[in-house]
Amino acid sequence: MNKNNMSRIEPKTLKGFRDFLPKETRKRQYVIDALRKVFESYGFEPLETPALEYAEILEGKYGEEGERFMYKFEDKGDRKVALRYDQTVPLARVVSQYSNDLPLPFKRYQISNVWRGENPQAGRFREFLQCDIDTVGTNSLLADAEIIACAAKGLKALGFSKFKVLINDRKVFSGLIEDNNKLPAIVRAIDKLKKNGREKVIDEIVSAGIEKGLAGEILQALETQKPTENINRLFGYLKTLGISEGNFEFAPFLARGLDYYTSTIFEIEIEGYDAGSVCGGGRYDSLIGMFANRTIPAVGCAFGFDRLIEAMDSLNLFPADLTTARVLVTVFSKELFEKSFKVASTLREKGINTEIYLDEQAKMDRQLKYADQKDISYVVIIGPKEAGTGSVTLKNMRTGEQKTVPLEQLGEAVKQ
Amino acid sequence: MNKNNMSRIEPKTLKGFRDFLPKETRKRQYVIDALRKVFESYGFEPLETPALEYAEILEGKYGEEGERFMYKFEDKGDRKVALRYDQTVPLARVVSQYSNDLPLPFKRYQISNVWRGENPQAGRFREFLQCDIDTVGTNSLLADAEIIACAAKGLKALGFSKFKVLINDRKVFSGLIEDNNKLPAIVRAIDKLKKNGREKVIDEIVSAGIEKGLAGEILQALETQKPTENINRLFGYLKTLGISEGNFEFAPFLARGLDYYTSTIFEIEIEGYDAGSVCGGGRYDSLIGMFANRTIPAVGCAFGFDRLIEAMDSLNLFPADLTTARVLVTVFSKELFEKSFKVASTLREKGINTEIYLDEQAKMDRQLKYADQKDISYVVIIGPKEAGTGSVTLKNMRTGEQKTVPLEQLGEAVKQ
Repeated sequence: MNKNNMSRIEPKTLKGFRDFLPKETRKRQYVIDALRKVFESYGFEPLETPALEYAEILEGKYGEEGERFMYKFEDKGDRKVALRYDQTVPLARVVSQYSNDLPLPFKRYQISNVWRGENPQAGRFREFLQCDIDTVGTNSLLADAEIIACAAKGLKALGFSKFKVLINDRKVFSGLIEDNNKLPAIVRAIDKLKKNGREKVIDEIVSAGIEKGLAGEILQALETQKPTENINRLFGYLKTLGISEGNFEFAPFLARGLDYYTSTIFEIEIEGYDAGSVCGGGRYDSLIGMFANRTIPAVGCAFGFDRLIEAMDSLNLFPADLTTARVLVTVFSKELFEKSFKVASTLREKGINTEIYLDEQAKMDRQLKYADQKDISYVVIIGPKEAGTGSVTLKNMRTGEQKTVPLEQLGEAVKQ
Repeated sequence: MNKNNMSRIEPKTLKGFRDFLPKETRKRQYVIDALRKVFESYGFEPLETPALEYAEILEGKYGEEGERFMYKFEDKGDRKVALRYDQTVPLARVVSQYSNDLPLPFKRYQISNVWRGENPQAGRFREFLQCDIDTVGTNSLLADAEIIACAAKGLKALGFSKFKVLINDRKVFSGLIEDNNKLPAIVRAIDKLKKNGREKVIDEIVSAGIEKGLAGEILQALETQKPTENINRLFGYLKTLGISEGNFEFAPFLARGLDYYTSTIFEIEIEGYDAGSVCGGGRYDSLIGMFANRTIPAVGCAFGFDRLIEAMDSLNLFPADLTTARVLVTVFSKELFEKSFKVASTLREKGINTEIYLDEQAKMDRQLKYADQKDISYVVIIGPKEAGTGSVTLKNMRTGEQKTVPLEQLGEAVKQ
């Protein structure tokens, strides 16, 4: 590396791309770790796919938006390549490419970034984390129930209690009109009922080529729609899987815009967080087989990671002491720094994340200020008096309280 | 998404890019989790930077190789962008861009992919994980010691016991010749002593413009080189930090090719693994300030992630039961699947990762085969007899042993 003429380059990130400084990254890690644990408790297995794929693997899979927003370029070997746009098409590729190594059903989770060159706006980014679970290779309704139960348990693990899984069956819609070609447009219109209101939805159905009277009837039919047998069975499974009845309900207007869902669809909304659903998914039986050239049923869901973080922030669900180091061991003097080193090592061995101040000559004030800036809960001071008596001074940075603690009790004192 | 004409597209990955199926990903996660835990125990904080940067941020920082191997392209807004090539230049950008929010010393770790369009060969990939710790903003030798101690503890946490941290001080070299301009070429030559042998190294020093006699003297001087005062102090710190003397040594020929190191340098080699060092780093005091236009001292190191995995594989250090689900609860019949669901939920609540077989109609044989294919340790069977007596049949898939266990003892039985 050389640094000629570096001075003129302004340090900045691309629009829609973000640095996550430690405070933010810790929150993200907290959520990822909690979700991973729940996913794995259900036996979902981790999968990693490359950031770059042959463009032809991704092209033509994401509609007109995908063509516009996909990051595509030619590499130095003149290959047309594209950055991962979602985690479902790579999953379809994997299922087909390694069919001999992956016993079905294949239950996998993937948590990785995707890239979309959308126009950045509130809550939209060009690089963002996706967090998916999918079960591939079975059309059992048990799999649908498990995906929903696992998603609900994930939210519980994060501390959400008041949430609702809205559930519908795409098949409800196919009984609504005779001409199934018009169905996708109608479904897309219904999907926006909550956002656009009844009038606008009827207008949109009309512009899909349905006469106004029929459009009204369609909405009415949905209003009086009873849960299908499928949905009733699904609800039974959910209860057996330990999901409270208060946490899910039949939602006949739920449509989910994407064309590829074939049966069960669901979205999860959180009470007190109105920016939209934090998780959505369903059954999509004709997508995963696209590279394998046969039908491979699948059901899955994706968490909106940025929304999860936002919802947790607004409902105050992050632990108050989500800092990396719990303790800063200060260094009193050049003569005494070895004592500090040893105390720090002992705390670490007890599983307590511990920083040592990395300068034997820094004033105590400066060391305390550093602990404060970094939200470290406890500061340990070992001066000549403490060193002589086998004790330390322990300062609680939250309360300001300061006390002398025998060395052997220090671990317990900072764990409380 | 639509799947028109999908059938002709062959599912494949780009050369130098890898899918990690669950078995491999679990190993990777195991290593990442263990290292993260150690890094955080020392107070290193997590940082995330974008995969894409303005090209000018990265250009000119990685020498001629960097220009050749960097993935660069124009995005749809005609911005010149580049994929992350390492984690150090982004760190330099971050330190300068957020100088008000990051109290120094800033100790961070970053574990993320980087992309380099090298010609793929054994052990070289175009997408690979980097795993860095760095301490920025202090020139205290304590920081050097802490980086080395933390790296050593990381290896211990992974189960490595016989490893050696080879340590040198770049300043040793500057006393060797008068013309310091020739030093980088000499250092690069010495760095290859182990690989190329004495003869070739002397030839290379000669072609850097040093006469043969002097080249020999340089090597001799290094052979009799005593540890500098700096290195002796560093060794003292390492001992205080709990690193055994057997795990580190003075290595006067260690040079590390990169020009930017300014003082302490080190590499870690593992006994029984000969493909190269698994970790390397040192002090580099004139790099991190490049965007801030001032000198910001720094010391850090990077683990070679793929080599770590390889070394762990070859030394058999991964836990034998590194599977996602520990138990498969089978489904005996449509009438009894609720019992199976409940048992699975109970096991999960006890912290045991548990899969349920997702088909009420599958034959028991097929379910057992599935557990076997997925390396699941235990299978639980709940037939009419078991259901009637509040017990389950527990089959150990490793030993083949099968026994009846009362429901309330099942958790304990599979934890053993």
